[in-house]
Order: sequence, then structure tokens, then C-alpha cells
Amino acid sequence: MTKQNRLSVEALKWTGNALQILDQRKVPERIVYQDFDTAEEVSRAIASMRVRGAPAIGIAAAYGVVLSVRRHAGENAADWRAKVDADIDGLAKSRPTAVNLFWALDRMKKTLDAHPDTPLAAVLAEAEKIHADDIAANRAMGERGADLIGSAKGVLTHCNAGALATGGYGTALSVIRSLYSRRPVQVYAGETRPWLQGARLTVWELSQDGIPATLIADSAAAWLMRSGAVDWVIVGADRIAANGDAANKIGTYALAVLARQHGVKFMVVAPTSTIDWTIADGSRIEIEERDPAELLPACYREQDSLVQAWNPVFDVTPSELIDAIVTETGVVPNPSADGMARLRMS
Amino acid sequence: MTKQNRLSVEALKWTGNALQILDQRKVPERIVYQDFDTAEEVSRAIASMRVRGAPAIGIAAAYGVVLSVRRHAGENAADWRAKVDADIDGLAKSRPTAVNLFWALDRMKKTLDAHPDTPLAAVLAEAEKIHADDIAANRAMGERGADLIGSAKGVLTHCNAGALATGGYGTALSVIRSLYSRRPVQVYAGETRPWLQGARLTVWELSQDGIPATLIADSAAAWLMRSGAVDWVIVGADRIAANGDAANKIGTYALAVLARQHGVKFMVVAPTSTIDWTIADGSRIEIEERDPAELLPACYREQDSLVQAWNPVFDVTPSELIDAIVTETGVVPNPSADGMARLRMS
Repeated sequence: MTKQNRLSVEALKWTGNALQILDQRKVPERIVYQDFDTAEEVSRAIASMRVRGAPAIGIAAAYGVVLSVRRHAGENAADWRAKVDADIDGLAKSRPTAVNLFWALDRMKKTLDAHPDTPLAAVLAEAEKIHADDIAANRAMGERGADLIGSAKGVLTHCNAGALATGGYGTALSVIRSLYSRRPVQVYAGETRPWLQGARLTVWELSQDGIPATLIADSAAAWLMRSGAVDWVIVGADRIAANGDAANKIGTYALAVLARQHGVKFMVVAPTSTIDWTIADGSRIEIEERDPAELLPACYREQDSLVQAWNPVFDVTPSELIDAIVTETGVVPNPSADGMARLRMS
Repeated sequence: MTKQNRLSVEALKWTGNALQILDQRKVPERIVYQDFDTAEEVSRAIASMRVRGAPAIGIAAAYGVVLSVRRHAGENAADWRAKVDADIDGLAKSRPTAVNLFWALDRMKKTLDAHPDTPLAAVLAEAEKIHADDIAANRAMGERGADLIGSAKGVLTHCNAGALATGGYGTALSVIRSLYSRRPVQVYAGETRPWLQGARLTVWELSQDGIPATLIADSAAAWLMRSGAVDWVIVGADRIAANGDAANKIGTYALAVLARQHGVKFMVVAPTSTIDWTIADGSRIEIEERDPAELLPACYREQDSLVQAWNPVFDVTPSELIDAIVTETGVVPNPSADGMARLRMS
């Protein structure tokens, strides 16, 4: 993966007729975009993790609603909205944890309510706005996060909270991109089992922008921190509760505990669309468990096998272990319900 | 992997003419034993991780010396010892961290010194004694460790400190076998990247003995602890310093920090041959770094790649994070230089 002068990679592209989705299950070996032109197909693309990352899931779902309206609003004036609502329900069931999905679908429903006579133009404009706003939010978060860090020898990230997880530029990786544009910093990435988003996506995406990165086994993070090489852990989030508790990829909570024990700072970077103001704390966040086969070698998958696997995809980091939550509208230092409420008012 | 009534699997078998080694790189998909009849071949089998685990490496090296003596002592009375010493040097270079390797080779050298006229019979008897003593020590440690734990809902282990890592029965897994023989306990195993010893060896080995086990991603351990499912972490060691600091598979240190933060107890199980009395603390333990290719997808391995990997194989857990070190001669609670010295005298 040599240094190349390109823009950041894109997870999603709207062609005018279809949503083009990069199949992230095949990156970095193969860069394959496929066109999806129905909401059902977009739901399946989310469920099967062709597209992943909370903001990108929300944007994909928004375009899924556009595809639904295009298909149904022309057919039968009487019941098109019921069909679109059924598609929206299907999109809402594609993944359970990322709140951006429900946030984006809610915006699309409100748009439909407000524009019953010109639904297609309205939802397309809304989806494109969600997409463009996400990119702008990410660039703002990158600068805010980099300001907060100042100088650092090394930073560690987990999973992929990058351009590939968002409309572009990234959340955690937006901070790393901004940092690196100011001065050299050593970037470490956990490989992120079982899906290896760190190994397959994060270091690839950074290398596409000319940013060197060092991959580590997830379990080596504590030893790396003990060596003194890391000043900040910088991660994204899939859902943030009203008190600042943050759900993110499994392993994030471990990094937060370990960071605190080693005097390493811990930053969560996420757009305000990731905040679920309806839940008081992280105990209310539904944690998706995926197929044990993601962990189990095939020979253990017999019916009467004594070998099982426990495969939670996310964990919840309590706000007291977070030094700062960085959003596009502001930074919440040492997050708590009060600090989060001030962000909401700002 | 269904329940089977068999004895614990064996990593090593002495045939009378050769050392039979289970190729642990192929387990659990394929169970392949190969015969090795020169010391050089045994060195390569250790370096290439056909056989791994500190006690098993020591035993394999001892038989490697037997093979060397058998080959050279018959040839040329004048210089056979120089040739055997060269083979011993080669065996000593096969892996750097496990002290059992050097301990076993030292015993073999002393045996040669003491029996210059009947070297083959003497070294064979010594190798067989090292092997048999290891199995007996493991059974003793299993009972001691199980006594110490009493009752527990759940235990978590890391890497493979089992029959496959030893002469038989295991160190950490000896405790789990003894525990399970007394009452049901839920056994969790970290998959142990990058080599997946937990996924490939530990849960397989336990299932061969009819013990159910649940595999987790290494990064899920903190979230598992937070759920309250685990009372003890039980691991082996590759080298223990005179103050109780313990080198073990990368990720062990993280588990020790996380265990302490979650009120989970932390036990290291290892024979006294794993203790390196020559080093005061763990800072003196050489940590092997293996090929970054164990972590890096092939597409990153170009000369000018911006993507690197850091791949330390072991880390060192400071003794203050260890609740008990269990050996065949006694238990050291809350280990320190004083407690370890008392063990040495006992």
C-alpha cells in the first residue's frame, strides 16, 4: 500500500439512480462498488456489513428511503406512503445499535410528512443534505479534536471510524487526519477482531491519504500504553447516551479502562446525530450479538459441539472513563449528564 | 467437536528412535504427528511453532539433546561432545523468552558432564525424567490451584497453557481440569491473536476432555468481566522473575490490569522450572517480536508500504497485579521477592 495522492476513499456514492456502495468486506484486497436501487437491497447491504459505521449506515438508510419513494410514489397514489413506511421499517431493522440509523430515518419521515406532493425531490434533497452535513461535521470535529490534543507522540484508534464509516473524512480518523496535517504523529490501530476493521479498513484508508500507521493485535494495546508510546486513544461511537456513556466496537471499553490506568487520555469523536437523548445512560443501549461463527473455526460448529462463542459486537464505555466527547457543535470535557445537556443547548 | 472419552492430547511422544511432535499449526483441522530424529530438526520445530508452550519447548529440547548424543557419540570419540554442544547452542537459539528451554538444556549439559562414559543412557533417562516430572508437576498444580479457587462461576484463560503446551495435563488448564472435575464451572477462552492458540488449541483440547468452553475475542474480556461472569483469570507463564513478575502471551498484562479493576482474581500457574532466579524483575526478560506478517494482510507487505505492524509475542505482568503464583512445590499469594524467596527455600 504505497503513498498515493488521492482524496479520502468513499464508502457511498449517489449516482442519481442508485446508491453505489463499496463492499467493505472485500477491502483492502478488492475495491468493488456495487449499485443498489431498492430499499430492500440497501437493508441487506447494511445487515451484511457491506457498509458499516454508524454515520455511513444512517446516510445509506436515507438514500434507501429515496429509492423506496422513487419506486412506490409513482405507482399508486393511494398507498405509496404505506409501502415506503414498510421499507423504512425494514431499514430500521437492519442493525440495532447505531442510533444514526433511526435518526436518519426519522428525518426522512418528517420530510415525507412535510412534502406529500413532491416527496421524491424532498427526500433526495434531505438525503443529500444528511450526507453533505456529515462530511462538514467530520471536518469540524477533526479540527476541534486536533486543537484539544495539541501535540502528541502517538495515538491509538480502534475499529474504523474513518471515511469508510461516514459520509467522508471520518470521526476518530478526522481527528487523526487533522493532527497529522499539522505535525507528524505515530498512529497505531488495533486490528479489531473479529471483523478486522482496523487491519482491513483503518490502516488501508490512512495509507491512501499518505498517513503511515502501525497495526497491533488488540491485546497488545496495554503493553503499548505501558511503553509510553501513546498519549491519546481516539475512537468513534455508535450511540451516546444523555450522560455521555458511549457504545462503540467491542474492545473500546477495555481500551478506556487501560488508558485511565496508564495515564493515557481517551477521546470519543461522533456527530450529534450519534447522541440518543432518549436514554439516560448506557445501560439502555441494545448491544448487538453477531453469529458465533465469526469467531469459531468451522470444525466447532456441529450441533452438539462443546465449543461455543460469545460475540457481542459493541460495548459501552462509562462517561467517567472518557476525557472528552468531540462533536461538530462542541466539545464536552469529562462528560456527564450536565455537560451533555449544555452541549444540547448550545 | 463432540465429547469424547480420551486422555488429554499429547504434544510430544518419544518413540525410542525419534521425537514425535504434533504440528500445532494445523490443529484443530488436522491432527498430524511427525517424527524428528536430529537436534537441528527439533530446533526448527520449536522455531516454527510446530511445538510451543514453555514447558513443552523445554521437554522437546531435552529430547533434541538425546537425538544429538545418539548421532554424535557413536561416530567419533574425540569430538562428539563439541558437536553435541553445538547442537545445544542451536536449540538454545530456537526461541528467546521461555526459560524452561535454557533450564532443560542446562540439566542435559550437567548430565553429560556427570556421565561421560554412558552419555546416551544418561541423557535419555534425564529427558524422560524431565517429561514425567512435568506431568506430575502439572497434576499437583491443578489440585493446588483448584483448592485455592474453591467455588467459581466462571474462569477466563488466555493462549494455551494446556496439555499441548506441556508434557501433559497443562498448567493453567490443569487448574481448570481439576476445578471442572469437582464441580461445573463456565470456562471462557480468549482467542489469542495473532496465532489463535485459544481458538485453535485451548477450546479444542478442553473439548477432547469433555469440558465445554466459550470462546471470546480478546478485546471482549473487559466487557465479560464487567458482566460479572468471571471470578478468576488463570494463565500460564513463559518466564517468571525472582520478584514474581511474569512474562506470558501478549494480552496477559491487559487481562491482569482489567481483572484488578473489576475485582476479578488473577492466577499464574507454572512449574518452578519457569522461574528465572537470575533476574530480579521482569524488566530483564527478553520479549520476542515475531514477523509483522502474522498481523498484516499480504497487500501491505510491499517494500515501501506505509502500513507496518508491531508484533510482540509476550508481555510482562508485574507481580503486584497477580493474586497467586501456583507451582508444583507451593503457592505464592500476592507474590513479591520475599514470597518467591520463601518458595525457593521450601
